[in-house]
Amino acid sequence: MAPPSSSSPPPPSSSSSASTPDETPLPSYAAYKFFTVSSPAPYVAHVQIQRPDKLNAFSEAMWLEFGRVFAQLSGDADVRAVVLSGAGERAFTAGLDVQAAAKDGTLTGDGGKKVDAARRAKGLRGQIEEFQGSIGAMERCEKPVICAMHGISLGLAIDIACCADIRICASNTRFAVKEVDIGLAADIGTLARLPKLVGSTSWVKDVCLTARDFSAQEALSVGFVSQVHEGKEATVRAAVGLAAALAEKSPVAVQGTKELLNHARDHGVAENLRYTQLWNSVALQGEDFPAAILSVLKKQRPTFAKL
Amino acid sequence: MAPPSSSSPPPPSSSSSASTPDETPLPSYAAYKFFTVSSPAPYVAHVQIQRPDKLNAFSEAMWLEFGRVFAQLSGDADVRAVVLSGAGERAFTAGLDVQAAAKDGTLTGDGGKKVDAARRAKGLRGQIEEFQGSIGAMERCEKPVICAMHGISLGLAIDIACCADIRICASNTRFAVKEVDIGLAADIGTLARLPKLVGSTSWVKDVCLTARDFSAQEALSVGFVSQVHEGKEATVRAAVGLAAALAEKSPVAVQGTKELLNHARDHGVAENLRYTQLWNSVALQGEDFPAAILSVLKKQRPTFAKL
Amino acid sequence: MAPPSSSSPPPPSSSSSASTPDETPLPSYAAYKFFTVSSPAPYVAHVQIQRPDKLNAFSEAMWLEFGRVFAQLSGDADVRAVVLSGAGERAFTAGLDVQAAAKDGTLTGDGGKKVDAARRAKGLRGQIEEFQGSIGAMERCEKPVICAMHGISLGLAIDIACCADIRICASNTRFAVKEVDIGLAADIGTLARLPKLVGSTSWVKDVCLTARDFSAQEALSVGFVSQVHEGKEATVRAAVGLAAALAEKSPVAVQGTKELLNHARDHGVAENLRYTQLWNSVALQGEDFPAAILSVLKKQRPTFAKL
Amino acid sequence: MAPPSSSSPPPPSSSSSASTPDETPLPSYAAYKFFTVSSPAPYVAHVQIQRPDKLNAFSEAMWLEFGRVFAQLSGDADVRAVVLSGAGERAFTAGLDVQAAAKDGTLTGDGGKKVDAARRAKGLRGQIEEFQGSIGAMERCEKPVICAMHGISLGLAIDIACCADIRICASNTRFAVKEVDIGLAADIGTLARLPKLVGSTSWVKDVCLTARDFSAQEALSVGFVSQVHEGKEATVRAAVGLAAALAEKSPVAVQGTKELLNHARDHGVAENLRYTQLWNSVALQGEDFPAAILSVLKKQRPTFAKL
Amino acid sequence: MAPPSSSSPPPPSSSSSASTPDETPLPSYAAYKFFTVSSPAPYVAHVQIQRPDKLNAFSEAMWLEFGRVFAQLSGDADVRAVVLSGAGERAFTAGLDVQAAAKDGTLTGDGGKKVDAARRAKGLRGQIEEFQGSIGAMERCEKPVICAMHGISLGLAIDIACCADIRICASNTRFAVKEVDIGLAADIGTLARLPKLVGSTSWVKDVCLTARDFSAQEALSVGFVSQVHEGKEATVRAAVGLAAALAEKSPVAVQGTKELLNHARDHGVAENLRYTQLWNSVALQGEDFPAAILSVLKKQRPTFAKL
Amino acid sequence: MAPPSSSSPPPPSSSSSASTPDETPLPSYAAYKFFTVSSPAPYVAHVQIQRPDKLNAFSEAMWLEFGRVFAQLSGDADVRAVVLSGAGERAFTAGLDVQAAAKDGTLTGDGGKKVDAARRAKGLRGQIEEFQGSIGAMERCEKPVICAMHGISLGLAIDIACCADIRICASNTRFAVKEVDIGLAADIGTLARLPKLVGSTSWVKDVCLTARDFSAQEALSVGFVSQVHEGKEATVRAAVGLAAALAEKSPVAVQGTKELLNHARDHGVAENLRYTQLWNSVALQGEDFPAAILSVLKKQRPTFAKL
Repeated sequence: MAPPSSSSPPPPSSSSSASTPDETPLPSYAAYKFFTVSSPAPYVAHVQIQRPDKLNAFSEAMWLEFGRVFAQLSGDADVRAVVLSGAGERAFTAGLDVQAAAKDGTLTGDGGKKVDAARRAKGLRGQIEEFQGSIGAMERCEKPVICAMHGISLGLAIDIACCADIRICASNTRFAVKEVDIGLAADIGTLARLPKLVGSTSWVKDVCLTARDFSAQEALSVGFVSQVHEGKEATVRAAVGLAAALAEKSPVAVQGTKELLNHARDHGVAENLRYTQLWNSVALQGEDFPAAILSVLKKQRPTFAKL
Repeated sequence: MAPPSSSSPPPPSSSSSASTPDETPLPSYAAYKFFTVSSPAPYVAHVQIQRPDKLNAFSEAMWLEFGRVFAQLSGDADVRAVVLSGAGERAFTAGLDVQAAAKDGTLTGDGGKKVDAARRAKGLRGQIEEFQGSIGAMERCEKPVICAMHGISLGLAIDIACCADIRICASNTRFAVKEVDIGLAADIGTLARLPKLVGSTSWVKDVCLTARDFSAQEALSVGFVSQVHEGKEATVRAAVGLAAALAEKSPVAVQGTKELLNHARDHGVAENLRYTQLWNSVALQGEDFPAAILSVLKKQRPTFAKL
Repeated sequence: MAPPSSSSPPPPSSSSSASTPDETPLPSYAAYKFFTVSSPAPYVAHVQIQRPDKLNAFSEAMWLEFGRVFAQLSGDADVRAVVLSGAGERAFTAGLDVQAAAKDGTLTGDGGKKVDAARRAKGLRGQIEEFQGSIGAMERCEKPVICAMHGISLGLAIDIACCADIRICASNTRFAVKEVDIGLAADIGTLARLPKLVGSTSWVKDVCLTARDFSAQEALSVGFVSQVHEGKEATVRAAVGLAAALAEKSPVAVQGTKELLNHARDHGVAENLRYTQLWNSVALQGEDFPAAILSVLKKQRPTFAKL
Repeated sequence: MAPPSSSSPPPPSSSSSASTPDETPLPSYAAYKFFTVSSPAPYVAHVQIQRPDKLNAFSEAMWLEFGRVFAQLSGDADVRAVVLSGAGERAFTAGLDVQAAAKDGTLTGDGGKKVDAARRAKGLRGQIEEFQGSIGAMERCEKPVICAMHGISLGLAIDIACCADIRICASNTRFAVKEVDIGLAADIGTLARLPKLVGSTSWVKDVCLTARDFSAQEALSVGFVSQVHEGKEATVRAAVGLAAALAEKSPVAVQGTKELLNHARDHGVAENLRYTQLWNSVALQGEDFPAAILSVLKKQRPTFAKL
Repeated sequence: MAPPSSSSPPPPSSSSSASTPDETPLPSYAAYKFFTVSSPAPYVAHVQIQRPDKLNAFSEAMWLEFGRVFAQLSGDADVRAVVLSGAGERAFTAGLDVQAAAKDGTLTGDGGKKVDAARRAKGLRGQIEEFQGSIGAMERCEKPVICAMHGISLGLAIDIACCADIRICASNTRFAVKEVDIGLAADIGTLARLPKLVGSTSWVKDVCLTARDFSAQEALSVGFVSQVHEGKEATVRAAVGLAAALAEKSPVAVQGTKELLNHARDHGVAENLRYTQLWNSVALQGEDFPAAILSVLKKQRPTFAKL
Repeated sequence: MAPPSSSSPPPPSSSSSASTPDETPLPSYAAYKFFTVSSPAPYVAHVQIQRPDKLNAFSEAMWLEFGRVFAQLSGDADVRAVVLSGAGERAFTAGLDVQAAAKDGTLTGDGGKKVDAARRAKGLRGQIEEFQGSIGAMERCEKPVICAMHGISLGLAIDIACCADIRICASNTRFAVKEVDIGLAADIGTLARLPKLVGSTSWVKDVCLTARDFSAQEALSVGFVSQVHEGKEATVRAAVGLAAALAEKSPVAVQGTKELLNHARDHGVAENLRYTQLWNSVALQGEDFPAAILSVLKKQRPTFAKL
């Protein structure tokens, strides 16, 4: 299901590494603690999960920060495409930091107090809603997001990846929808989104019910990822190249396409067509459409204002 | 699209056959006439369609009984995973027993009386609803169901398979959505569910409109089944192995995962996330979640109470 | 994902070419200017886009006519299956005729008058709705439509193909969801329908956001098309063969299957099952069902009245 | 909001009482223990809740039987309209028999066993679903149901009344959505249906949140009931008169109208119009439509076959 | 439920009659045969059903023309509000012209040919869809429509009135949802829309199932109409006054309000809020909003460009 | 439609004024600038809009603060019911502070920069979404909210009131859906919610399209408010009395009832029943249900823990 490499967007021209060390940090994102945000190409932001010593496992503070990073990216007119990857060689992320969660009571919903089941349920509902909302910020981000995965990618890794627009991975990636093995149904988005992302429900139920590992090749063959590359560096470089290509296009066209595709997922065709009429009745009044048409007719390269 | 065999759950340790003769019948299911229910592994029920001399074709009495078998399995706390297969070497099922149906008037909706079209339609609606409801009992069964197919698998075979959670088959399976060839649109569930189970609508319309045969390999490549095995015995053994693996896990986690994935099929993402908050606000208060967490932290094997 | 050629429906018996020159034009469609409609097999209509000197690019007059052609086919009891292809060797269609559209003001929504943004938006909404409605006529056509593509197939080509029931293509087809490159989100149906036609959302977003080309093989591997043939002639011949096979079957069964599958796309399972009960409560009262049953039992070939 | 009495359907001609003693019991319903079913007029069934010494309060056995009574009425071609009332002078029903429920463990969902919260929740979900399903049988009954209330009508009384098609009451009726006062949100249907039955959400939330009593006049002014009569006898007589009028009309027309109005409640207008096209495409082929047209043209009184 | 007359919009200043004779016919609507369209006030169109000798009963030619009239009004920038009334003193409309329909075969769906039930159903579906579509043109008309009823208003009269935005009537109006009495469930829109227009479902089912007459006062008390006036002339004058008041306001604001309220009827709150964001993101960029704001601040009377 | 005053909950026993001066401010809400929050009764919070010199008109800072106040109330376990009123004698609120909005550029969506229509639309969408979200916080507040209106209540006043659970008002209240008169369709929630709150769509369209005033009596007769009282003081006292009554009941029952009724508004009956099963499967495991049952059986007054 992977496009032949010849039809992939070309990698950035520099043959030197596009990975972490060479990238310019974006100053307005310097205050975040668990994530670095740099700019490897014009209008491209590269977000890296920065907790490699813990296999990039997520604590509660991290997922709250994750939501804030993507809310900021969504409104940042200097960003037109985003790449997400995990720092370090071993893991994209090992998922929830279960030990930390067990210690600080995140998992129990009772804040340490003895309360009845109805009251504890209210606490748990609120916690799950907040957690879902933080991770979902990546899906709500109005710029396209490319998720570049490698190594250990378990549990929350899948919830996160399902919120991206395009998923690519390194050939050494080890995926699993791990939640059943810690005694719960995945509740941060995998069960809601995965069946709408890939074609085979039999496969989705297999991996979600058994919690078994699946490989990069299997992920490619079922359509969960659309490219597999050798090693993390090549994967991130391909993601950055793809993001750079998107960032050169009209942001009105790109962000509109993301919005309309996300709308299509949850609506019937007639409903989406009506919403599209309304959307384009204003989008076509922007400067990008005539500028792009002119470029096509004159075979020139267009530039577009910020959005 | 098939997982590489190395990542499949391991087959049951005994190398002797897991097929029919060796399995212990479950006494509480002994009264059924067209189905046998045995237990090839702890907490696993194996349902076999038992009409091999008629290629396991379904009469009205059979599909009503089919509904009752799965309603009982759904409420049976001693069962945590189910395998469905067809007895005999030749067929999973050849579908509706057309000759019997033609003889006893099942197909005409008029009970033999001369009635006008509006009145006959009321009879037909009721019959179709009852038939849909009986087959749909397998989907409503709260335990995961693995459908292991082989040989002739036509018409109703597809309606039934679409109600399973995971589908695997023998390499000799001959599939067809046969209804167009007997002059009707399939009405027991194939047209409702198949487009949501596999990725290619072009393929779905091809097989549904032409009623042509398709092979195990084609079923695997489009994602209709997720494993193909050599011969019926190996297929059933793989299904039982997979079911046994599911039966060892937390039933709260497994049954919750099934429920949330089925809910996701028919709802938008936001709706499913809200339902999930509510579901897990009580599921997380069970004993399985802390027990499984503890097992992970202590690297022990957990056991779980009945559900 | 392509069915092995051996399981495809057989080509029409005549070994001579099924392509344009030999086909009988259908007189009742003779008045159309941009489309020819001929009958290569009993009850089969072959619609050809006839503007090969402009790579079959669409002007406004063409898409309005396109809608009328398919509205007529939908109500024509002498037609039971339709093939759509593009005349000439180079292109199925290059999409919108951008130069013509730029010249006659189709794209601006203001009819040349200076109006404020709200008033211009009303004009644009109306234009997009009309355009969507014309192309959507192919989806609303009650007969199955097979889209046979070759060569250049860009932009509007994808919107059109998404309205067909079955898509097949020549190995030289060059596909692209091209709209982002002319500064807009595709608004004639690709974004509404493509995610529901193929299995991998990561792939859909890739091709829709990057506007990159994809090949026949890639289209086959993701399930967008279900057959690839060598060259245009073989592709059209295969499409006609498939259409001829459909045209021999009960039109009550075939058209009902199309309607119920289209309904299933936009509804949940329970809703579709209820609609199916109602649909078949009358369809089963037609003559086709008993005639087909009888044919099966007597191993005869049935014939069916017009619908 | 009450129709002026002059435009109400005329009461049955006999001036003698239409109440219990004079009505003929319907033999096929003689085995029920908590409900009597008689026939006060041709094709009319009168169901009476028969536990007057307990104010017609419902035990679990009663609500299960209630479901069976209405399932039988739905399929009984000798019944075209149904009246539901409560035996005795004091109460339509006082709702759930809380003492009985507390005693036999119906309310706890644990069957007396000590289970964790997740397992107990599964038991409770099953119980509520069964209870909802039994009461909902009255809504699913394909014949129109007129609910005639008087006296005490609390809690479950409202859940039941919400499943009827038309509600009328005696002037002494004392209504309350009582559940909040026993510590729970009403879960048998009042909260799902009441907001769709009356016009003022402010009023609905007032009575549901405060659990306060409301009178027959208040019920009439908000549209919950459509007629108020003096005393139980007059109320039941009016209900029977209305049912008798419905029973004289075409059952194809009456049952179709019920079905389409119930469908409209839960669907958008476009969806309902499409469903209606399908419904009437067969209903109009019955004998009732031409017979009724002819009657209108010839000013005769039509008769209709059973349905 | 009627607003006190003092808060109604003032009648047009001229004290002379606003009824038919004085109104200027609109030339662009002169070709219609069954409807006259005049302009009793600036930007107001008054459509009259013109078949008083047949009590304005509708033939097939009439309902097709009705659809064309309202399609033209929807796109006519010189019209900002519409009044619909029936010519003559006796009837708004007596509904379908049953005798004509019986004669020309409109009701049978078989075009006079002997066809089986499935084929006849296809014809009937198409006819009902076309009929629904013609009447629904009034709802799709982007300008607000005020329906002014008087005298006999049966059957189709209610289907039509349900498509208007505001309903008012003369005190002598005689309403009935008459379809059950001619042996069918109403299928042109009453059952789809009436339950969403008034507050009491018990009342809706009463009038739809019994087909009984209801009066102007009853229609007012349940909210079906919002004003009752003495006699036809006063009713039409009030409707024209109301339309004239709407026609003086910003057409961007008025037509947007109609669109968003119609959208709200068939969507949940969150969905409608999202659609509203998109709608107003372009509507607020028109000239009307700043012009109206300025008028409020400067206490001047604004004027607005055509839409 | 108003309940007879005798059936209203009794006013608080103290005959002294329940209005502002006597109420204890709640310290944790002291930092808000535009709203005061006091506690007139146990577990009751009284929020007052505090900008009486500007007729309580809303600036952007105010509506953002409004959202924060209700988010805090939603999570405050010491609050079980909320009353909202406007400070001062003249107005609940005059709506948006149009002069301030015009001055600070809130209405233009361009932040003062010259941008094209597509870019300005993005700004406007974001502003409307934020505004909707702030006002909607009152609807999302998990505690029941009673809105007590008096005097001038225009534009935004209706948007706000529509988010409350119960609406009551003083007899001098002057309501209007004013937006059309400032050139826009109301976009903060009135058009989404009002049609679902009252019974007559004809009335809703009348007041939304004409922007005319309507009185307390008219609001009562259509069901927009459920009580009318003489003067502001009596109105607030009645609201506090009602809130105090709710605050004495089980918070599990009260908050569950609010949640399930809000869910019912946007879902079909079957969907709501399923959600209710899940909700009560945990709510019934709290302490309130057995405590309340026991109180009923023992005729004692129960107390309930915080939620």
